[in-house]
Amino acid sequence: MTDKAILISDEELDLRLTKVRKQMTAAGMDAMLVSDNINKFYLTGRVFMGYIYLDATRYVLFVKRPTVLTGPQIRLIRKPEQIADEMDRLGIARPMCLGLELSQGSYAEVMRLAKALQVDRFEDADRPLSLARMVKTPAEISAIRYCGEIHKRVYSLIPRFYYEGMSDVELQIEIERAARKAGSIGIMRTSGHELEINMGNVITGENADTPSPYDFAMGGAGTSPALPSGANGTLIKPGMPVMVDVNGCFNGYMTDMTRTYAQFPISAEVERANSLSIAICNRLAEMGIPGASCADMYNEAVKMASEAGMADYFMGHHSQASFVGHGVGITINELPVLHARSREVLERDMVIALEPKFVLPHIGAVGIENTYVVTDEGMEVLTHAPERIVELEP
Amino acid sequence: MTDKAILISDEELDLRLTKVRKQMTAAGMDAMLVSDNINKFYLTGRVFMGYIYLDATRYVLFVKRPTVLTGPQIRLIRKPEQIADEMDRLGIARPMCLGLELSQGSYAEVMRLAKALQVDRFEDADRPLSLARMVKTPAEISAIRYCGEIHKRVYSLIPRFYYEGMSDVELQIEIERAARKAGSIGIMRTSGHELEINMGNVITGENADTPSPYDFAMGGAGTSPALPSGANGTLIKPGMPVMVDVNGCFNGYMTDMTRTYAQFPISAEVERANSLSIAICNRLAEMGIPGASCADMYNEAVKMASEAGMADYFMGHHSQASFVGHGVGITINELPVLHARSREVLERDMVIALEPKFVLPHIGAVGIENTYVVTDEGMEVLTHAPERIVELEP
Repeated sequence: MTDKAILISDEELDLRLTKVRKQMTAAGMDAMLVSDNINKFYLTGRVFMGYIYLDATRYVLFVKRPTVLTGPQIRLIRKPEQIADEMDRLGIARPMCLGLELSQGSYAEVMRLAKALQVDRFEDADRPLSLARMVKTPAEISAIRYCGEIHKRVYSLIPRFYYEGMSDVELQIEIERAARKAGSIGIMRTSGHELEINMGNVITGENADTPSPYDFAMGGAGTSPALPSGANGTLIKPGMPVMVDVNGCFNGYMTDMTRTYAQFPISAEVERANSLSIAICNRLAEMGIPGASCADMYNEAVKMASEAGMADYFMGHHSQASFVGHGVGITINELPVLHARSREVLERDMVIALEPKFVLPHIGAVGIENTYVVTDEGMEVLTHAPERIVELEP
Repeated sequence: MTDKAILISDEELDLRLTKVRKQMTAAGMDAMLVSDNINKFYLTGRVFMGYIYLDATRYVLFVKRPTVLTGPQIRLIRKPEQIADEMDRLGIARPMCLGLELSQGSYAEVMRLAKALQVDRFEDADRPLSLARMVKTPAEISAIRYCGEIHKRVYSLIPRFYYEGMSDVELQIEIERAARKAGSIGIMRTSGHELEINMGNVITGENADTPSPYDFAMGGAGTSPALPSGANGTLIKPGMPVMVDVNGCFNGYMTDMTRTYAQFPISAEVERANSLSIAICNRLAEMGIPGASCADMYNEAVKMASEAGMADYFMGHHSQASFVGHGVGITINELPVLHARSREVLERDMVIALEPKFVLPHIGAVGIENTYVVTDEGMEVLTHAPERIVELEP
């Protein structure tokens, strides 16, 4: 791998810096010090240990590790307390109001950085950075489009993994392996420290109705109270819906895709729930032009579920999630979130996962999820795997 | 899975609470509000969304999700602002000095909790909690001992995964799958948000000398600048050392174990480096009785490496890590850390991984890592896989 610190093109970097600076200024900050891996990856194309200083004209990487990185923007430091001296050397005045990542950064780190830079005032940089990252650049959309292609290929292998008597966990392990072989880095970054997941979830049968502590669309008991969500060892039986939501981060970006599988025959009820999920996706994708209200889209999904008599099963049964979609990019949950109280409206080039799912009591979880990019004509799907329930042949 | 909120026995809970309260008092706090998943798991045996309030006599779980949890200690809340009212109802006075997790918790969350509880003063609860967790209880040691058994069984499968022309990534994927099939939850918790890893690393050939941004013992380029550490697709060639450090979290606890594999024949140099690693482990394990200084142990390892003429290759070559061991438990890096400036001394029932590893330029990474429990007679190994270089037969 190259030692060049910045792995995105000059044009791409300009584009990203412009977006971030616009949000930074709108939030009343004159500079930011970025330390979260997610945002450092956005602003350089790589993860490193250290900080990015950013103001209206400057962009400096204060790098702790690896020390081999090269580029004119690099200043090597051992600890954040050296940043102030380096800024003096570079002729950068102390910012009046510094942006720090108050939701992603720990209290201890935020206080240390504020002290190290001797600033009087600091504000939250997480929200402006998330807003900047909410609308994707063309290079990001290509990266996500690539993930969609690989993701589809991985899902096409799922039927051949299945054997009679297989458990949901056993199936998930084979899907994870296929994703890793296709280039997944093996982790899915989430935004916020409370959400934990490995590479996704497979949810089968009654396990769908077990509530989990995590704020994902679906629950499941998991295999251990140490990570209580998803597959729990349920044996897959004929007719039982198997909902697969195992994702791959193939290049730092991700697509989020869910499909439902079953050993046929399946009941009309299961078929109907999946068709309704597809119909909701299609309807929202059609609505999803620039300017569309995220709240309206959520409400439309609820309305469609209600009209079909499925309101009690929409986004869970015993425990219902209150959103139907969310941004996707470097993390699995970015802005905007499509829920009843969303204030966001769609903008062109947002990338959004729609996941109208149903939990049928004593039957299981049914539905699909696609990742889309917002275009002037509506939302274009990036996850092209077949949407009907896929047969698992024993 | 049961809905009982507390999954550890009453005796075990008492033991843990006593340890935490002792550290809490020593740190000058009269109460703590715990929100990190790691510490919630320690104090209940499960992960949930919410908070644990703890003072000299009380122990209350303020649970957001899942709402089905049962037990006399439970108070359901929707948001932390309700905690103060619930405390009033329970007759709990506002603490004078509240402990909050300042290193694990985000700035935004810490400020929100401090405000919600209307406290004048808060201090860091992370260090007292880490100190309490540093010495393991008998139940924790059993849990870790179990992980060691499973871990050994997973490693015993490694030679049969190998085929000629295999890459380090391909081998790692098979080991991950074996660990998952043996019950691994598929994530490894680290302490601190900067460290990212999936289930471990396989490091082969020259890739060992590529520095990574992460503060692990070994580097490696990884497959993507989005997660730049570990295996990078190097083809395994005869004689090339393949260092496997893929771990499994089988029950919320972990063992950390490294072994070196190679398609034979291997050079005397590689053999010697591995023997030196074993010798350092044995020497430190012998030194490691209660009262032993962590700094002395680190210095002894450096001395042994130097006397063998291997100082330049100890814990890396281009980039050298400055520690030789660390605590292991719910996360892969707990207290104490064995480095030159450690002030900690060993205590009985600490669980510690020793990883004296070498990077031989243009050859690769060689060495072993074991997880031990500190006993009055020295450190007892919990990771019993054979320590000599294991042959990979094509």
